[in-house]
Amino acid sequence: MSDVFTHPWLGGLFADDEIAALWRPEAQLAAMQAFEIAWSRALGRAGLVPEAEAEQAALAIGAMHFDLDDLRRGTGQDGVVVPRLVAQMKAAAGVAKGAVHRGATSQDVIDTALALAMRDTISVLEQRVAALDVALSDLDARFGAAPLMGRTRMQAATMVTVADRVAPWRLPLADHRARLAALTPRVAKVQIGGASGDRAALGPAADRVAADVAGALGLGNPVRAWHAMRDGVAEFASVLSLISGTLGKIGQDIALMAQQGIGEISLSGGGTSSAMAHKQNPVLAELLVTLARFNAVQVSALHQAMGHEQERSGAAWALEWMVLPQMAEATGRALSAGLDLCAQITRMGEPC
Amino acid sequence: MSDVFTHPWLGGLFADDEIAALWRPEAQLAAMQAFEIAWSRALGRAGLVPEAEAEQAALAIGAMHFDLDDLRRGTGQDGVVVPRLVAQMKAAAGVAKGAVHRGATSQDVIDTALALAMRDTISVLEQRVAALDVALSDLDARFGAAPLMGRTRMQAATMVTVADRVAPWRLPLADHRARLAALTPRVAKVQIGGASGDRAALGPAADRVAADVAGALGLGNPVRAWHAMRDGVAEFASVLSLISGTLGKIGQDIALMAQQGIGEISLSGGGTSSAMAHKQNPVLAELLVTLARFNAVQVSALHQAMGHEQERSGAAWALEWMVLPQMAEATGRALSAGLDLCAQITRMGEPC
Amino acid sequence: MSDVFTHPWLGGLFADDEIAALWRPEAQLAAMQAFEIAWSRALGRAGLVPEAEAEQAALAIGAMHFDLDDLRRGTGQDGVVVPRLVAQMKAAAGVAKGAVHRGATSQDVIDTALALAMRDTISVLEQRVAALDVALSDLDARFGAAPLMGRTRMQAATMVTVADRVAPWRLPLADHRARLAALTPRVAKVQIGGASGDRAALGPAADRVAADVAGALGLGNPVRAWHAMRDGVAEFASVLSLISGTLGKIGQDIALMAQQGIGEISLSGGGTSSAMAHKQNPVLAELLVTLARFNAVQVSALHQAMGHEQERSGAAWALEWMVLPQMAEATGRALSAGLDLCAQITRMGEPC
Amino acid sequence: MSDVFTHPWLGGLFADDEIAALWRPEAQLAAMQAFEIAWSRALGRAGLVPEAEAEQAALAIGAMHFDLDDLRRGTGQDGVVVPRLVAQMKAAAGVAKGAVHRGATSQDVIDTALALAMRDTISVLEQRVAALDVALSDLDARFGAAPLMGRTRMQAATMVTVADRVAPWRLPLADHRARLAALTPRVAKVQIGGASGDRAALGPAADRVAADVAGALGLGNPVRAWHAMRDGVAEFASVLSLISGTLGKIGQDIALMAQQGIGEISLSGGGTSSAMAHKQNPVLAELLVTLARFNAVQVSALHQAMGHEQERSGAAWALEWMVLPQMAEATGRALSAGLDLCAQITRMGEPC
Repeated sequence: MSDVFTHPWLGGLFADDEIAALWRPEAQLAAMQAFEIAWSRALGRAGLVPEAEAEQAALAIGAMHFDLDDLRRGTGQDGVVVPRLVAQMKAAAGVAKGAVHRGATSQDVIDTALALAMRDTISVLEQRVAALDVALSDLDARFGAAPLMGRTRMQAATMVTVADRVAPWRLPLADHRARLAALTPRVAKVQIGGASGDRAALGPAADRVAADVAGALGLGNPVRAWHAMRDGVAEFASVLSLISGTLGKIGQDIALMAQQGIGEISLSGGGTSSAMAHKQNPVLAELLVTLARFNAVQVSALHQAMGHEQERSGAAWALEWMVLPQMAEATGRALSAGLDLCAQITRMGEPC
Repeated sequence: MSDVFTHPWLGGLFADDEIAALWRPEAQLAAMQAFEIAWSRALGRAGLVPEAEAEQAALAIGAMHFDLDDLRRGTGQDGVVVPRLVAQMKAAAGVAKGAVHRGATSQDVIDTALALAMRDTISVLEQRVAALDVALSDLDARFGAAPLMGRTRMQAATMVTVADRVAPWRLPLADHRARLAALTPRVAKVQIGGASGDRAALGPAADRVAADVAGALGLGNPVRAWHAMRDGVAEFASVLSLISGTLGKIGQDIALMAQQGIGEISLSGGGTSSAMAHKQNPVLAELLVTLARFNAVQVSALHQAMGHEQERSGAAWALEWMVLPQMAEATGRALSAGLDLCAQITRMGEPC
Repeated sequence: MSDVFTHPWLGGLFADDEIAALWRPEAQLAAMQAFEIAWSRALGRAGLVPEAEAEQAALAIGAMHFDLDDLRRGTGQDGVVVPRLVAQMKAAAGVAKGAVHRGATSQDVIDTALALAMRDTISVLEQRVAALDVALSDLDARFGAAPLMGRTRMQAATMVTVADRVAPWRLPLADHRARLAALTPRVAKVQIGGASGDRAALGPAADRVAADVAGALGLGNPVRAWHAMRDGVAEFASVLSLISGTLGKIGQDIALMAQQGIGEISLSGGGTSSAMAHKQNPVLAELLVTLARFNAVQVSALHQAMGHEQERSGAAWALEWMVLPQMAEATGRALSAGLDLCAQITRMGEPC
Repeated sequence: MSDVFTHPWLGGLFADDEIAALWRPEAQLAAMQAFEIAWSRALGRAGLVPEAEAEQAALAIGAMHFDLDDLRRGTGQDGVVVPRLVAQMKAAAGVAKGAVHRGATSQDVIDTALALAMRDTISVLEQRVAALDVALSDLDARFGAAPLMGRTRMQAATMVTVADRVAPWRLPLADHRARLAALTPRVAKVQIGGASGDRAALGPAADRVAADVAGALGLGNPVRAWHAMRDGVAEFASVLSLISGTLGKIGQDIALMAQQGIGEISLSGGGTSSAMAHKQNPVLAELLVTLARFNAVQVSALHQAMGHEQERSGAAWALEWMVLPQMAEATGRALSAGLDLCAQITRMGEPC
């Protein structure tokens, strides 16, 4: 390890390649590169540097291969990667180096890259939530009419149907989609502030540069820098955990249904045991519970990290880096595991 | 104690009377009473019991004084208050007891009461967020043009203005209002499910009864019982913590500004010390930090509590009771303390 | 509410009178009074004030009735109760007021009172852990030989005995007792620091005063003020949560054993339902799960609160007040509910 | 990413190579291999398999190169790596395959490997805590006598000395060492239970096998399987967070001391800014705050994970895997960063 998502064998259980591709270092680097390319060109279009020089810088940045050892040393020294990243870019730009990063600051680069990752994650999650809705509707169509013992407080109550058990798995999905849609404009926006967040270094061209960069990256353009306002990031984390929480309930219910003596569900392809060949463990159902509890813990970190001091925090910001990518991947995996689990269900309802 | 909100002296710092009034036991009892009154009348209008009997039951319930000792013993025995509450109501209704609680279950009563508390809390918070917006705009108007050292990573950066410091305090408020508005229909809705959540005991009249109760209480009427879907409750908690998180940043900034040697703000009415008469502690600023960190911890509980098993949980449900009322009060207090703190500010900007 | 422990009916489920008596406002006030009495006398014995004046002050403090409204207003103003508490004490002491609180500060009073509450809580918990050990040994003696389906990953594995199920409930108790014993000297100690924590106001008599106060209160006397070192408080919270975590496993297991279709346990006196007279809900088992999850959330707050700034924090300190008393009561209740639950067990082992 | 510890550039800030070496997949694999070697030999010595066959199996396991792709697929299928790991080992052992893993189960392998990682982590932490004690004593010797404004509630109080500021950084270290020492026997012990945790498959030889494996691995030998008792694991996490919490206070204090306008400390080698060449950010001080807050969140996960159901949990167990290695690395890094930060201090005390 450290993390289960990139772990050589635990990754077989936890990894979500599609979400991972949005947060892995290569993607972060590409997003920071995209920001700096858009920035250089925007400087040129705004007349802050000659357009030709801007284009030369943009092309040089686009063609770069980064020295990762230097970035690593620099991050250890500076607490952020951007000073060394920009130094490498300026070296690559040569005579056009004046068109690189001028008037921008570390947080502009990193938080705009974060905005891209959040936007693209939302897009994947929206598709999967929709797919899960279909999968659960299909379960309902196949098994919904079957009788089932209703259980409240883990005790037999009155007879219901499978449809009654499945409805609380499916109905929250529409609200999750509404939440993701409402969240998008609150996080999918460029961060542009400059040294102290007031865009002063860009002078009267600031708005034009910001709009230009936003347009190039397909992000919103807020009225000012958001880097000291983290409510969007914390809301993003909250919605991730709401989604995995719904999946956790599904997993918990299925693990309970699959118990010997209860027998309310049959699953194909459960996990085997090293000691007991006859066992069929409801591995994916348990995984959903694990991921829900993981996110329910992690969400606290993003709420704690809202306290960005003054014009920019170091400590609270880095706490986000430690937690947010894993929450995104855990949520993505919860949805993919939920879809896989639906496909394993061969029977629901009272045991024959 | 146990809790700081009702504590005889700590309440002077932490209590929020307006929010407390929505969550205190008397309010919970009144809300459960309101539910049962509306329920009896709805049974009558739906023809499930004679209308006169329904009205008689409703009037009897409305005139009741409850035996709290009995409710306490019953809750210890049953894990919920409703069995004894309903027994008392039936006794009060006398011959009309058949029109009491018929077809309803514990969670219908308690979660509908919860919906009322959440709805009314949102309403108070919306007003206060709006008032805080005005107060911060006023600060901006009075001091916004004053120069201020921009500070990033707790180090002097470049000169900005007070307006730049205040903007990240104020701008999230519009998003908080949007979040509260979007949240309202997801939590302000009746919970009506009956024994196993399928409304079976009401037969074909179920929809009419539900609509009738919803109308009487001013709540939405969802397509089915939501008691095993807790995403609305967890979202409510998340939004509370987002709001207190913004206040926490304000408090942290003001505490930093008020340091000797920094001197970026002057406050009237700070706290005194038992050992040092000269001190003026920024008590309300610290309180905002405390409340934000409190909510950032508690929010985890509501996400953990999403795992309601099967048709109804006992364990996860009770975890909500332990945490949610205090989060509501902490958030309300953060807003009222934030307003008080704004009123204490007599100067912002570089020290003279 | 706000809190379930003092709630008129929820208290029937959650309250623990014995622990509550150690943390309730009356007990806090008595502990602060005891500190100030010991302090005045210690000042006298150390020759910092005339002994007769010290005794007069001590007697006056001991005879006081406090004006709670004034304390409440003062706490709202000062962020701590002590300035007004001391003012009331000085007024009561009259001409002996010079022997009141001289050289002490707010945190000395409050944190020494906290030390007393932690010490006495540990003592109660030690007794209950021992009692639970006996109760579980008794269950083992009565039912241990009965066969039981071993269940791993919530699936039937191989046959074991009831003794195998009960052993992991009981064996951690010895370690919990060792933890409580090791913890005691780290928290049961006077806090004496004065204005900035260096005991400067007491001059060379500081050590004598501290030793005297410690002796009078039955607390340890550390080499210096501990008020900016909160590892003891956070460890106390951690051990509370370790204990309730073990109880949570017991509750979870029993709730699973009590399911219809599993039937591995019979309980007397389970809770009833407002909708289904036949149900016997395993209320106490669920309560153990709730309390464990509650503490597992709250423990984070005490770890977050370790960051007391400089010589004394306001924000982090107040966070402890919000959380610690409820953790203590939740842990006490987990143990008492665990004992009650053991007494409800009438059968364990495979269903007949 | 996902995690900052193995991240190509963020690792420059967060990575701790020495701790990482104890938890990385290669180390986990080596530990599981060591368990199975010791197990095979113990089976031989106990007469459960022929000694020559046992030795042949042990040698074959020791010489293995594992097929990681197969392990990954197997983990995705089975939820644990052990079924495929053992299958590979049996294939490698050939005719001696009967001496592989016989009578053991997945959790025996993984939790014994975990015990080794915890034991070795404690050993590294003990050394570093001792080194930090020396470093802080050295700071005290160099700067302790210098005057410093005491600050309480972030406000100037009375003059103290640097020694008074440093003491609360150093004094908890002795308690941390005591905690680590007391913890060691509670976690550094073999897990041996077999299919349902009762060691039944080993018959009367069970104790001999367990003692033999424990001796070979240098671990304690508890009276029975601990895999359904997670208090040791949760205590390990708690102590990690207590240590990083102390470091967090140090970092918070130093970040506050380093503010322009306060100037109570001078640091060499602070971080640079991409926008402002003059800045010297207190990067390591901020990092200590970040790591403390991270662990204070994560500790909740290990307390939540104490609820291992029945004879063995899947869901709660996997939650430990997601969190514990990162907590270990964060704690190690906090200590190494604390040591580095001490070495950067060139002056403490009132600004000249």
